Amino acid sequence: MAKLWGGRFNESMNELLERFNASITFDKNLWEEDIQGSMEHAKMLYSIGLLEVNELDLILNGLREISSEIIKDKFSFSLENEDIHTAIENELCKKIGQAGKKLHTARSRNDQVALDFMLYCRKANIVLQGLLGKLIQTLLNIAKQHTHTLMPGMTHLQHAQPINFGYHIVAWCMGFKRDIQRLRNSLSMINECPLGSAALAGTPYKNERENLALGLGFESASLNAMDSVAQRDFALDLLYDISMIMLHISRLAEELIIWSSYEFGFVAFADDFATGSSIMPQKKNPDVAELLRGKCGRAYGNLIALLTTMKSLPFAYNKDMQEDKESVFDSVQTAHICLEILNASLKTLHINKENMRKMCEVGHLVATDLADFLVQELGIPFREAHHVTGICVRYAEKEGLDLSQVDIQDLQALLVKELGDGVAINIDKLSSALNLEDSMQRRNSIGGCNSDEVKRQIHVLETWLDI
Amino acid sequence: MAKLWGGRFNESMNELLERFNASITFDKNLWEEDIQGSMEHAKMLYSIGLLEVNELDLILNGLREISSEIIKDKFSFSLENEDIHTAIENELCKKIGQAGKKLHTARSRNDQVALDFMLYCRKANIVLQGLLGKLIQTLLNIAKQHTHTLMPGMTHLQHAQPINFGYHIVAWCMGFKRDIQRLRNSLSMINECPLGSAALAGTPYKNERENLALGLGFESASLNAMDSVAQRDFALDLLYDISMIMLHISRLAEELIIWSSYEFGFVAFADDFATGSSIMPQKKNPDVAELLRGKCGRAYGNLIALLTTMKSLPFAYNKDMQEDKESVFDSVQTAHICLEILNASLKTLHINKENMRKMCEVGHLVATDLADFLVQELGIPFREAHHVTGICVRYAEKEGLDLSQVDIQDLQALLVKELGDGVAINIDKLSSALNLEDSMQRRNSIGGCNSDEVKRQIHVLETWLDI
Amino acid sequence: MAKLWGGRFNESMNELLERFNASITFDKNLWEEDIQGSMEHAKMLYSIGLLEVNELDLILNGLREISSEIIKDKFSFSLENEDIHTAIENELCKKIGQAGKKLHTARSRNDQVALDFMLYCRKANIVLQGLLGKLIQTLLNIAKQHTHTLMPGMTHLQHAQPINFGYHIVAWCMGFKRDIQRLRNSLSMINECPLGSAALAGTPYKNERENLALGLGFESASLNAMDSVAQRDFALDLLYDISMIMLHISRLAEELIIWSSYEFGFVAFADDFATGSSIMPQKKNPDVAELLRGKCGRAYGNLIALLTTMKSLPFAYNKDMQEDKESVFDSVQTAHICLEILNASLKTLHINKENMRKMCEVGHLVATDLADFLVQELGIPFREAHHVTGICVRYAEKEGLDLSQVDIQDLQALLVKELGDGVAINIDKLSSALNLEDSMQRRNSIGGCNSDEVKRQIHVLETWLDI
Amino acid sequence: MAKLWGGRFNESMNELLERFNASITFDKNLWEEDIQGSMEHAKMLYSIGLLEVNELDLILNGLREISSEIIKDKFSFSLENEDIHTAIENELCKKIGQAGKKLHTARSRNDQVALDFMLYCRKANIVLQGLLGKLIQTLLNIAKQHTHTLMPGMTHLQHAQPINFGYHIVAWCMGFKRDIQRLRNSLSMINECPLGSAALAGTPYKNERENLALGLGFESASLNAMDSVAQRDFALDLLYDISMIMLHISRLAEELIIWSSYEFGFVAFADDFATGSSIMPQKKNPDVAELLRGKCGRAYGNLIALLTTMKSLPFAYNKDMQEDKESVFDSVQTAHICLEILNASLKTLHINKENMRKMCEVGHLVATDLADFLVQELGIPFREAHHVTGICVRYAEKEGLDLSQVDIQDLQALLVKELGDGVAINIDKLSSALNLEDSMQRRNSIGGCNSDEVKRQIHVLETWLDI
Repeated sequence: MAKLWGGRFNESMNELLERFNASITFDKNLWEEDIQGSMEHAKMLYSIGLLEVNELDLILNGLREISSEIIKDKFSFSLENEDIHTAIENELCKKIGQAGKKLHTARSRNDQVALDFMLYCRKANIVLQGLLGKLIQTLLNIAKQHTHTLMPGMTHLQHAQPINFGYHIVAWCMGFKRDIQRLRNSLSMINECPLGSAALAGTPYKNERENLALGLGFESASLNAMDSVAQRDFALDLLYDISMIMLHISRLAEELIIWSSYEFGFVAFADDFATGSSIMPQKKNPDVAELLRGKCGRAYGNLIALLTTMKSLPFAYNKDMQEDKESVFDSVQTAHICLEILNASLKTLHINKENMRKMCEVGHLVATDLADFLVQELGIPFREAHHVTGICVRYAEKEGLDLSQVDIQDLQALLVKELGDGVAINIDKLSSALNLEDSMQRRNSIGGCNSDEVKRQIHVLETWLDI
Repeated sequence: MAKLWGGRFNESMNELLERFNASITFDKNLWEEDIQGSMEHAKMLYSIGLLEVNELDLILNGLREISSEIIKDKFSFSLENEDIHTAIENELCKKIGQAGKKLHTARSRNDQVALDFMLYCRKANIVLQGLLGKLIQTLLNIAKQHTHTLMPGMTHLQHAQPINFGYHIVAWCMGFKRDIQRLRNSLSMINECPLGSAALAGTPYKNERENLALGLGFESASLNAMDSVAQRDFALDLLYDISMIMLHISRLAEELIIWSSYEFGFVAFADDFATGSSIMPQKKNPDVAELLRGKCGRAYGNLIALLTTMKSLPFAYNKDMQEDKESVFDSVQTAHICLEILNASLKTLHINKENMRKMCEVGHLVATDLADFLVQELGIPFREAHHVTGICVRYAEKEGLDLSQVDIQDLQALLVKELGDGVAINIDKLSSALNLEDSMQRRNSIGGCNSDEVKRQIHVLETWLDI
Repeated sequence: MAKLWGGRFNESMNELLERFNASITFDKNLWEEDIQGSMEHAKMLYSIGLLEVNELDLILNGLREISSEIIKDKFSFSLENEDIHTAIENELCKKIGQAGKKLHTARSRNDQVALDFMLYCRKANIVLQGLLGKLIQTLLNIAKQHTHTLMPGMTHLQHAQPINFGYHIVAWCMGFKRDIQRLRNSLSMINECPLGSAALAGTPYKNERENLALGLGFESASLNAMDSVAQRDFALDLLYDISMIMLHISRLAEELIIWSSYEFGFVAFADDFATGSSIMPQKKNPDVAELLRGKCGRAYGNLIALLTTMKSLPFAYNKDMQEDKESVFDSVQTAHICLEILNASLKTLHINKENMRKMCEVGHLVATDLADFLVQELGIPFREAHHVTGICVRYAEKEGLDLSQVDIQDLQALLVKELGDGVAINIDKLSSALNLEDSMQRRNSIGGCNSDEVKRQIHVLETWLDI
Repeated sequence: MAKLWGGRFNESMNELLERFNASITFDKNLWEEDIQGSMEHAKMLYSIGLLEVNELDLILNGLREISSEIIKDKFSFSLENEDIHTAIENELCKKIGQAGKKLHTARSRNDQVALDFMLYCRKANIVLQGLLGKLIQTLLNIAKQHTHTLMPGMTHLQHAQPINFGYHIVAWCMGFKRDIQRLRNSLSMINECPLGSAALAGTPYKNERENLALGLGFESASLNAMDSVAQRDFALDLLYDISMIMLHISRLAEELIIWSSYEFGFVAFADDFATGSSIMPQKKNPDVAELLRGKCGRAYGNLIALLTTMKSLPFAYNKDMQEDKESVFDSVQTAHICLEILNASLKTLHINKENMRKMCEVGHLVATDLADFLVQELGIPFREAHHVTGICVRYAEKEGLDLSQVDIQDLQALLVKELGDGVAINIDKLSSALNLEDSMQRRNSIGGCNSDEVKRQIHVLETWLDI
């Protein structure tokens, strides 16, 4: 079958070139959007008198037929047809003859592909929002069960302060919440319909682009046709949004991997979500988490790929832009499966509370509490309290104890020595300051790790998600 | 002066390491945000009884004094002070003694730096929106003067259809409009105040984080303190937004460079915005446009730098995150100067209408019009019309003419030969189909290049910008 | 069929996870390398007494059989088999029973995949070198025909000095020459055989890794087994080398696209290598060059993808590293087809000498020559000569002439006026200074554009290539 | 002072633009290379009679004077002078008058900057090689002390097989060794001197580019002048080489960070190389390692920045290329300080042998040994041995023991049960198979972790380094 633009040339393209130029091998992914766009376009052509009613019927039925053939895997996407638009249009013409040839009136492949791709990105955006919502729900369900599960809160991968596991989980949710917001923001910018932009200058047909736009779910027809066929901002936005999703996943995955180590032992993946070794029978590897972490690279790569391709392209359409699709398809599919797998693996994740609790007794997690005690109870300036606490920590280390385990009398004596006889130290309050559970519960200001406050955070997120 | 965290260690850091660890050389950029945050923090501490009124006064006056010293370039940002927070706090303590040491109560450097950097990004976001608005205004002013300036509209850098220069300019505006929208969306996500998150777990002080947040211009205090100190989404969003701005600038710059060539001769930069050659006295190089194009690389690089650094970091704060600032500062400064320079250079850009007009007579720009004529006047299916037009183009080429210059009678004869004797061709309409000006004006559907439609597009954009 | 590592687990993996974990969909590309490696491994096992001779025969014949089944497309790469190593080993065991189970002795999938992938990269490296060599040959063949074809040499896309087209072509070759050198350098670093590294610690078998290494074409066995299974430097090197190839191609493509514009008209692609428009019948778009330019993004993206994935991975093997292959396969295939297509398209490229020559008379290309004349003939310091030449250029512009077309007497008068009566100007030499052909030929120092010098450059490159 | 190319223009550049265009703020880094190049150029000009001997003396002395002024920080790099070449040349002319103006004969800023930058990259390359060599020496010194220090060898951050710490250290060295090889390879490609290429077409002067090249330490003058001024391959190669160095550093740093955690406790940084917390007095954070890891992002970003900028630039020089320097300077300085800091921090790193040893008794590290025992002693096919070992591991887990601690009689019984009465199990050999130290020593094939083999590996590396 002849290329759509074949009228002018004397020579036929050689095979290699055909493969090089063709996009059908990947843009066939857009068949549904292409048919949807063509149907609306046909209705518009009918509405302005460029199609007879019977021609419209032929076209709509023909497209429906093609649609069902594709679903049944009976449609041949051959290289000869170059791209999905040509493949479908050629098939339509074969099916219904002359009427099919009228379908391309008042549009061009430039606006057609912009539309198809935009519809795809819009759909992917919405699907990813849904998956993120489900992931947050799963995380919140876990968090609810662990608002009292003590664990060592870390910075620099060093023990810092006692928190609870639920609090840590809520922290993870926040990134995914922003991912949803970011997707919503991007979606709000996919609001202008490019169809009817034609090659670059709009069409001379008294068409009804506004109605067409509404029919396809947009707010309006695009304001400037040249921009419509020349820009791929919506695709880049999606690639960036997915890069952020994958970044957040990579951080969560890193923690799961570290926590799965024998040394940490905070969590364990269910057998379904771990794999073994061909040479070491005892291994139970957190492969799933590693792949989740590793696939971040792919998302960044796809973003840079399209950013690079679009850099310094003159207006309007250039063939370079055909390179836009594979990176987006890959990122969307990657984010899709990663969100599903992560969600599923979290549901069966084993949490080892005992190990978390045990590690709270290492690293002087209550040191800040001691400093705060000195500030609040004794009125010592923070910087000085910090200094004195350092001395107490060194004392505990010398004794081979965690600060939370130091004898209260001994500590009192040390403090008096450092601060002077004048200080009156309330033993009960000092004791509470050094208690791990008390320490965690004390942080009850907004955003803090106190159990009730964490429950409030969970509630706020659930309300936001409208669970 | 001692490091803030120096209490515990016996050894002093060597010089090299000091240079390696310190961020003061670049985070001094944040001095204004740091002082703003400290002032609000001090007021909050006073409101919950942790500062006396005279201590508050001392702190506020001390900070004001430091502020004015920095403005007068009398403040020493020495490496010893490691970071801007330490530098200011140490200086404050030197000035006002004990009271200064109380300022760090109920916060940590982790939330302090998150706040400062967020405030910076918020400010930069707003400034860039303003510069983009001004750029669009400048472009629209040019566009208004050229809604009748014929030029060859291009795809693939090949002549496609006649458009007007104003229309092309409006196409450029659309990308910058989306850049503003994207910045607004990002800004809407910088709405939670991190201050009071402390190290990672919130504080035990009954503080008033909500009031503090409002005082600093946020909607609310952050929901989860651990996320607040662990995330840099707002910085990445800004880096991406700037990458998109620079991408759009690079495309515009590419066109200006190509149009400045002798071969095109469509535009010429004013002498101020072009430079010469040290060895070729006649050269007038579009250096400004080239730098605008080249600086796109820097924006992409900064984005990838921070995406890479943040990848797979465990929660909460890690020192890696200190690498967040230089890339953002560089991208913001780059976007800032590029937008200013581009704006200024466009204002004095010389537009060579004659050359644009002349090039419209090359490349058979009216071929689509001929095809449309065949569809609309003769009712020929589009695909067939396309084929016949190809034959006419080949005829024109053989004659060494542009299709717009072919003798109408000859063309009529050719069409009759191809389409059969039955066709009745209206010579006037055929003649108009081949007229360049008519062709451009015919594309009067929404988004098209017709002069009135372009004026409407300009008006819509001006209204949006609220000019 | 059971997973190789399935012995330990009670639960079966669900389908989604299987798809997520499996690499068989892409690492089947490595089947040939996998079989090659297994054959050599079997021979080694036999040589140290771990296989009987008949077991060796069974294995070798079994592998040959599998090889021919794959070639005939009769081998089923099912998801169940997870990866290419498992797929082949499972099939082997099905064919030959017990003996097949011995093949995995003294190796692990960790070293097996490192070997397979290294062999693939080695082969790809060599193939790309060959394609680059052919491309340079094609370019040199064109260059030879155009050592006297005057064209405007450009910097900043502005006319600078007259050169010849052959000279420009040789400049292109230099980048591709360096690409070959870079590939050779990378190849020299793929010299240590990882097979026998086992999981991470080497094997307890008294194996003969050195002989095995030689049998597989390496210089030696790897020095440290842990590094062997943990590193992917060879893959990153290839991704970078390909990025550089694509960068060089993108620059060449950009020039071809600009030169194909109506405004330049320096070159035209043969119909085979250009495509039309679905809506504009007259268009002849340089699609091939645009795709060549655009695919640069893909190469950069793949490089960043793997760099990101490998960042901060602990030793030794991590599942993240499974993400290494798709990016490399894609980059190799991209570079492969791009080099072939570019080579083919150049062979039929039409060079429009007349247009190149004509454009030499625009832009005062001989200005530097005039400055040089003033320096060499009149002994004027270069900076001053530069200044005076600027005055002459402005004079020519006022007259509406190119500097090469200004009346020699007038110019002489102007020079005398500027430089004082004392100067004696040789009219013949001045005239030659302003002659375009003379100007080009004068640059006869090493590396210059003089025709004979260009022929020498071509000869040097041909010798280097050993044509 | 006037711009070098100022002769032609009527208008003066405004301040903003001056700042935008100028490179002096960063290319002043190249002052030494610029002066070196100018000195050799002056000698060449003298050798071909374009300078008198006294002019040469004036120039050389003038340049020496400028050099010493810069060293003494008495040279003013003002924005007016645009770039380092202009700054030095203008100053020279101010010092020595007319002779200075002759220096720019037979060169252009295009080849001058190419030379300066190449000399810089060459120097940086060599310095980095030296630092890498020193780092490897430090690592090998540590490795030597730990060839018997048992530690759990890991894949997937899971315990796999017992190795020794020295072996792990040698694995780190291998990447840095390849970094040196890669730098050497890149250096071998900086072998053509660009000076004398002039603007793009070479010079008409009968110069002696070959001698000039040798004088500047190159193998030859560049073959094609147009390529010389248009390419930045050498800078990209260096950016990539540094990306690889930083990648290797990031992996090492990640391990040090994980090993510094309380849970692992394998290593501890000396106080000099760790930092504290402003709010948590007990914290000792591995900040140095975190910065080393985080700075990897910067290196990748710089690589992508220049790759992007160079993409699809037409020949020859374009102003975009001015963007080449800052990214290279930043990457070089980053790699430089990171290598120094890493080297220093490793020298005082505390290795906690006891913790490493203790963790070897967790995770059934000898499972592979048991499987190997079954293969080697009992002739069981590997896959079956793997399966049976899995059963033994599950038995040990049920008993709450590590496989290395299971009672040998019990294990023997279990094996007999699984394999049938016929098997004769040598208790001593079984016992040795399950011994951690024996396990590590058994892996004595080339590349393995056996202590003597590791010593051999260290020796090979030392010989390679020529220590």
